[in-house]
Formats: sequence, structure tokens, C-alpha cells
Amino acid sequence: MNKKYCIGIDLGGTNLKIAVLNHNCGILSKEILPTQSFPHKEALIEALVSSVRNKLISQEFGNKISGIGVGVPGPVDYIKGVVHYFPNIPGWKEVPLKKILEKKLGLPVAIDNDANVMSLAEYYHGAARGLRHVLCVTLGTGVGGGLILNGTLYRGAENAAGEIGHLPLNLEGPSCNCGGKACVEVYVGNHRILARARRIYKKDITLEELSVRANKGDRRARDIWRNAGIQLGTVFAGAVNLLNLDAIVIGGGMANAGEVLFKSIRQTITSRAMQVQAKRVRICKAKLGSNAGIIGAAILAAEATQRF
Amino acid sequence: MNKKYCIGIDLGGTNLKIAVLNHNCGILSKEILPTQSFPHKEALIEALVSSVRNKLISQEFGNKISGIGVGVPGPVDYIKGVVHYFPNIPGWKEVPLKKILEKKLGLPVAIDNDANVMSLAEYYHGAARGLRHVLCVTLGTGVGGGLILNGTLYRGAENAAGEIGHLPLNLEGPSCNCGGKACVEVYVGNHRILARARRIYKKDITLEELSVRANKGDRRARDIWRNAGIQLGTVFAGAVNLLNLDAIVIGGGMANAGEVLFKSIRQTITSRAMQVQAKRVRICKAKLGSNAGIIGAAILAAEATQRF
Repeated sequence: MNKKYCIGIDLGGTNLKIAVLNHNCGILSKEILPTQSFPHKEALIEALVSSVRNKLISQEFGNKISGIGVGVPGPVDYIKGVVHYFPNIPGWKEVPLKKILEKKLGLPVAIDNDANVMSLAEYYHGAARGLRHVLCVTLGTGVGGGLILNGTLYRGAENAAGEIGHLPLNLEGPSCNCGGKACVEVYVGNHRILARARRIYKKDITLEELSVRANKGDRRARDIWRNAGIQLGTVFAGAVNLLNLDAIVIGGGMANAGEVLFKSIRQTITSRAMQVQAKRVRICKAKLGSNAGIIGAAILAAEATQRF
Repeated sequence: MNKKYCIGIDLGGTNLKIAVLNHNCGILSKEILPTQSFPHKEALIEALVSSVRNKLISQEFGNKISGIGVGVPGPVDYIKGVVHYFPNIPGWKEVPLKKILEKKLGLPVAIDNDANVMSLAEYYHGAARGLRHVLCVTLGTGVGGGLILNGTLYRGAENAAGEIGHLPLNLEGPSCNCGGKACVEVYVGNHRILARARRIYKKDITLEELSVRANKGDRRARDIWRNAGIQLGTVFAGAVNLLNLDAIVIGGGMANAGEVLFKSIRQTITSRAMQVQAKRVRICKAKLGSNAGIIGAAILAAEATQRF
């Protein structure tokens, strides 16, 4: 029997999504559970296992599923399938998640961080389709990144590549959570943008509201996004000079700021990157939105079981 | 008959080097001509052709040579073998050098820029041997770079990858020759270092002298190199976070500044790069010195003719 489905799991700080996908990454079934509702690691793993088991015993998918992919919000030993830790979910430290899930579910499991998983999704089925050299960026609480080079996910020496958020924007500058300083993430992370908006509007304002205001022409909101675009564009120019990329694909909540942000990024790259590299690179919005995680996880599973 | 030799040509701003190498990149014969002694492009090509012809008709090498590799000091269309231009040798613009040489010499010719050629040499026979993810840097008039990723030379979308000298060191800063601003090359190129030395010592001083003074313990000379190391280390930290490299191999005239420069680079990377990436990366001096160009060119030829 030809096993042609994969299970894609997107374990995020907010939601745990579990889906069955066909070989074209079409979503056949999707379940969403709130991550915070599980009091500890064991409860979360148990919920995940029981959701997958339900799929495995169903008549519809049961014996057609060849493997399981999991995207997680933190650094991972990809080869061993060990979660090092999650910056935003307590209680996870050196967890052999692959081994645990394989033992409980009897199927091959592949695990990678969310930025790599999103990059796979956008490369096979989204904005980076058909390109060979792409940086995928998620703009959210932090600035995450994944690299497709020569048409494959580039992992580096220890699966830690892609950290575009931690390119220095300045020689000197504020400390970063990563231990370094003046990383671009310090300047354009969610919290910084919202703090800037709070100072300007003298009240709390959401990211969505700031985007809506900018798109309606509010000058002060546009200035905030334009400034973020210059800061991001500056480190992107460095990445473009170093890697001669076909495209930079940008997703995450902040990407909804829309044209004002993208235009500022593009202008900065045009004025700062070298001519050949600047002319080549396209700056575009990610296509798969909130499904990127489960789609990428299914691709991860398929690549690991070599069925695609 | 097994053709097992290659000709490696290093066309530099100062010297034109032409060598015959065996399949282990051992140098069997080497000729050095001063580049400036040729009044124009045609004369230089003619000298190069006649030197190669002498080797082709010699009894020793004649019919054993399988191909020719050329490293050049400027951007190249690697696929077509066209020199776009040389920043430091006038008169070269969109020159189909591969075609010209193949027609005149009757052997396959491969052409690439000097930084890529140096990277190949250090990867196969120098400091980067056995590693998979390496940035090779040349510190000279400019700051050049080549990337070995996943064990092969990474060229990017248009053979323009590797430009580590054009990562921005600051959001704002002085204009760079590349058209951008605040590139690290603006801060640590030869001329800047020498200008700084001139201001401090109130006289002209060579790079060699500055290195000798630093190695003898001259505090002011050491400060100059230490400062350059912090500036280089900052952009290297960004590259290390983005690419999770095994090593950064540093060559070129400035690399002779020695331990004071290397220590400063290492300390900066340790303090600014992310822990996993910083712990992994080694910072080492290039091994092949002035032979890197001809060795890399021979490898280029061998790769192109698939004989190694």
C-alpha cells in the first residue's frame, strides 16, 4: 500500500496545530489546541500524541500515513531530534522529542525549528517556489530566519544557521537577549515597535492597529514602519551582498504592515547593497500565512522519509 | 594518455603568475611577470598566451595538461567566462576571456574571481581542509571574501556571493566605493589603516612596519590592529550567526599583523555571536600565502574538466 500522507505539527507559543496533509501538501484535516492550556510539558506531549493516534486509527487516513514532522519554537538538534529549549514555553530542556514520539506512535518523526520549517513551506509551496537562493524571515516577537541555498535548506555546522535577527546593525548599541549587542532584533522586535508607538500615541496600541493606521495614511504610524524598514533593509543589504540571494520572503505578524514597510526595505537595499546583488533580489511577502508551520512540518516529514 | 596536470594562472594587480601543477596541486613550474609592465589588455593577454604555449610545447608537460584556470581581480560571469571589469587594472570591460584563451590555446579554460579561487585553494589544500562551512577572507586594499558551504564553493544567484567586506558595520557611516555606506571595508581597508597610522605617528608607515611594531609591543600600533579586529569581528559575528560556520580563514597582507589582530577578532566574536555559533567557529590564518591564487586556479580548472 502506498503511504502518501504526512502529519504536520506546528508547536507554537500560542497554538498547537496538528494536521494531515496529502503529497501535494493539501490540508485534509486540521486541529488547533491552545498551547497555554497544557500545564506542563508532559500534558502537551500527551495531547499531541492522542491527537495523532486518533488520526492513525481513523479509516480515512489510518494506514496511509508515512511520517510525522514537527516545527518547534526554539533551537533543536535536528539530527538527534532533541529540543534544546523553548524561549517562550517553560519546562523544556534537552527533550528527546523525536525518540519520545517515535516510541509512542511507531512512525518516523523529524523535528526542526519554526523558521526552518517555514522556509521549507515557502520554498516548496509559497513565495519562494522555483527560486534557488532565498532568505525567509519571520517578523514577530523576535526576528527569525531560515536559508534556502542552492535549492535546499541550509543548516550550517550545527543546525543553527539563519539567524538574520542577530546581525549587528551597529558597532555599539543596546544589549540583545542572545548575549550580543546591537543586533537588528533589538531595534525592530515587536516590543520595540509597540514601545515606540506607545511613546508617540501616549497609549497602548496593537500591532494590527499600527498597521491599519499606517495603511490609512497616518504619518506617525508610517514613520515607525519606514524606520523599521530602514533598519531591517540595512542588515538585509549585508545578507544580500554576502549571499547574492534571489529573494527575501518576509512573514510573521509585522509583515501585515504592508507596502510602507516593504517599500522602505526595498529602497534601503537598492541604495546600500551592491548593484548586481541589489538588482537580482526580490523582496516579497510570505504566502502561506498561519498554515506555513503545518505545511513545512509535513515537508520535513516527507523529506526525512524520502517520499516526496 | 592520462592528462593529469593543470595550468593555474593568478592575474593580480601587481603580478601575473603562471604555473603548472600536478593533480595534488604540487607546483612543477612557476613564472612571475609584473602586471604593470603590459601597457594594455591585449599585451597582457598575449604575454599570458605565450607563456602557456611554451608550457604546452615543452616535453616535460606538453601533452599532459588537461585545462587552464584563471583567477582574476574583479567580478566575473563564471558560466560564460566573461570579465565584467577590474577595479584596479584599467581597460577591461566585459572581456570574454574564456573564449579568447580557449580559441588561442585549444584547452578548456575556467575563470573566477580571486576570492573564490583563494577559497578553493584553502579548502582543498590549506587551512579550511576537511571543514564544510567556511568563510575565506582576504584583507588587503579591500576586504574580499569567498564562501564554502556544504563542502562546495557557494556562488549565489549570479556568482556575486561572498562580499563580506560589504556588510554594513553601522546604520549610518561614510560612503563606500561599492555605492553603499558604512560597509566594514570603509573602516578597515588598507588605506584607512595606513591613514590612521599616519595620523598617530606623524609620518608615512607601511603595513609591514605597523605589524612589526605591534608584534614588538608598541601600544599605539596594537591599538590600531585591536580596533580593526573589533570592527571585523562585529561583521564576522553577523556572518557566523547567519551561516553557523566551521571556520573563518583570513589571508591577505593585513593577516600578517598576527596575534593582536586575530585575538581581537576572536574576542569580539565570542562576546557578540550566539553561543552555539560562537563556540563552533574557528578563526585561523590562511596557509597558502602567495601561492593560493595559482593553486586555486588549478583546482578551478580541474573541477571544470572534472579530472580531480
